[in-house]
Amino acid sequence: MDDASLFIGFDLGGTKMHAAVVDAAGHALCSRREKTRAHEGPNAVIARMAELCAALRQELGARAADLRGICVGVPGGVDEATGVVDAAPNLGWSGVPLGPRLGQALGLPVVLDNDVRVAVLGEHAYGMGQKTQTMIGLFVGTGIGGGLVVDGQLHTGQRGVAGEMGHMTLVPHGPRCRCGRRGCVEALASKTAMAARLRHLARRGWRVPRGAEEAGAPLTSSTIAQALEEKNRAMQQVMKEAQYYLGLLAGNLANLLDPEVIVVGGGLAERLGERFVAPIRAHAYKHFLVQRDREAVRIVATELKELAAPLGAALLGRRRLAVRDGVDSTPAARHGTPSWPAPSA
Amino acid sequence: MDDASLFIGFDLGGTKMHAAVVDAAGHALCSRREKTRAHEGPNAVIARMAELCAALRQELGARAADLRGICVGVPGGVDEATGVVDAAPNLGWSGVPLGPRLGQALGLPVVLDNDVRVAVLGEHAYGMGQKTQTMIGLFVGTGIGGGLVVDGQLHTGQRGVAGEMGHMTLVPHGPRCRCGRRGCVEALASKTAMAARLRHLARRGWRVPRGAEEAGAPLTSSTIAQALEEKNRAMQQVMKEAQYYLGLLAGNLANLLDPEVIVVGGGLAERLGERFVAPIRAHAYKHFLVQRDREAVRIVATELKELAAPLGAALLGRRRLAVRDGVDSTPAARHGTPSWPAPSA
Repeated sequence: MDDASLFIGFDLGGTKMHAAVVDAAGHALCSRREKTRAHEGPNAVIARMAELCAALRQELGARAADLRGICVGVPGGVDEATGVVDAAPNLGWSGVPLGPRLGQALGLPVVLDNDVRVAVLGEHAYGMGQKTQTMIGLFVGTGIGGGLVVDGQLHTGQRGVAGEMGHMTLVPHGPRCRCGRRGCVEALASKTAMAARLRHLARRGWRVPRGAEEAGAPLTSSTIAQALEEKNRAMQQVMKEAQYYLGLLAGNLANLLDPEVIVVGGGLAERLGERFVAPIRAHAYKHFLVQRDREAVRIVATELKELAAPLGAALLGRRRLAVRDGVDSTPAARHGTPSWPAPSA
Repeated sequence: MDDASLFIGFDLGGTKMHAAVVDAAGHALCSRREKTRAHEGPNAVIARMAELCAALRQELGARAADLRGICVGVPGGVDEATGVVDAAPNLGWSGVPLGPRLGQALGLPVVLDNDVRVAVLGEHAYGMGQKTQTMIGLFVGTGIGGGLVVDGQLHTGQRGVAGEMGHMTLVPHGPRCRCGRRGCVEALASKTAMAARLRHLARRGWRVPRGAEEAGAPLTSSTIAQALEEKNRAMQQVMKEAQYYLGLLAGNLANLLDPEVIVVGGGLAERLGERFVAPIRAHAYKHFLVQRDREAVRIVATELKELAAPLGAALLGRRRLAVRDGVDSTPAARHGTPSWPAPSA
């Protein structure tokens, strides 16, 4: 693939979408975001995605001719071969042929993958995981997800479902998780878990952030940050508990994998940075079995923030299409190729 | 290295030692075992190791000339560069120059590594993990340890301490572990943990296996097997609890790594086989986040049993010395070379 080539890295989230045009060196030339408005249905969302890409294309001017493809990180499972989104609960999608539809609208090859996975790739290629052999990406949001880089390569597992660290059990018989099981890390330390704990404290008479006492009210990172700013005691307590469990998780992962870095991403890490990560790191270090050189295992907040997923997606798209075109057969590029026909450009 | 070459794979355990002469295809030509008698001190133990090797040599007859080296799996940490055993609590050793001393006694190059690690290598090369890309070795004994194979390679981590799955926290604030922390899997499901639970039940009036009510009495795999045979209710209960926690651990590891196989080794798996592993597998499957194709993740008892470590050690020794001699520079061989001078053969 020529060095002037450009890719669109697209992060399709449950609440917002974010796309960037990325060059071969991993620089974002321009980027745009938009609300997803998933409730309007797949057709409207795909049309909005195409508009966002068209706007980026226009912004590029003459360089738009260098666009070679687009890679979308989807919050769910995708069939790489057909370009179909199998199941994306946050979007309410199942069996949506996003790849072919978007490809047709844009006249560009489209590659799909999981959103967390492309964010991990982004952190490893351009963020806090640069030049590491073993990296763990830990994303804390409404849910908890992540990904592993081992020996410099994304580890996807035999069924392609590796990295579900949010559903490692940490408290047997603990609180019920969205997945139906009990005591998963996600049920203890995600924003969903924090919201449940706040409601619990509200029932016991604690003063909680406005709206947090209502069931079903989503707890946003900005609500959390503001409540901490205002020194709301319930919020401080709930945050402390979550950081304790995330520290245990990070310690467990380090005892198992002995990584060079654990990059913490997601809304809270983006917004609170070191204030979010420092207590996690302190708990994790206490739980390392091998204390020697424990600081060699860095536990840090994302610096790329919202750009991690678009940058990683663009990189993945670049690699996949290079494999398809026979340009690149390195191990880095082996994670499948888009086998459904790309629309003629 | 020529195809006729032979290596001694040596498993140095806290209670017994076991050595095998292994050919290039991974077949054990002969093997011997002996009590370690660690209480007699390092000098006596090293002398006994040398005698065992001498006996193997004699058994080989003319083929003894094909011996190229020996690799010892040590229950603790080793300095690969100097051949010194840094710390092996089960032996009471610290700073013992096993490599140079044994090399001098035998006139052969000696390679040291961790015992669990060589057993994982053995299972991957010759046991239930053959031809897999992602394998987890989970060893349940007095303690709980293990190792990971990712992308077909042993994963050692940046500090070389990966695989400490026995010290992943599973019950925050749970029972005290030998490592000083609380709620580690080892404190919930090792033979040490089972012994503690039996004492607890004995104090509450349960009939426990003979001797198990005494503090400090080691609980052997054969005592456990016999008590289960006799349908001792306390033993059944304690075993059920341990299998539950081991199932959670296996489920956690599968959610994280999505491996092809989890091989359960150690005394209980060797002796009880499927009777030990079946309930672990059942609990683990229940805890898989992704239920699709869950049987594709095999969870099985070791078949190599006590030979896993000697076979793996021989293979590791072969690879390390091939690297040193410049014969092999494949990734498989990269895990260091013995840099302390091998005695002239």
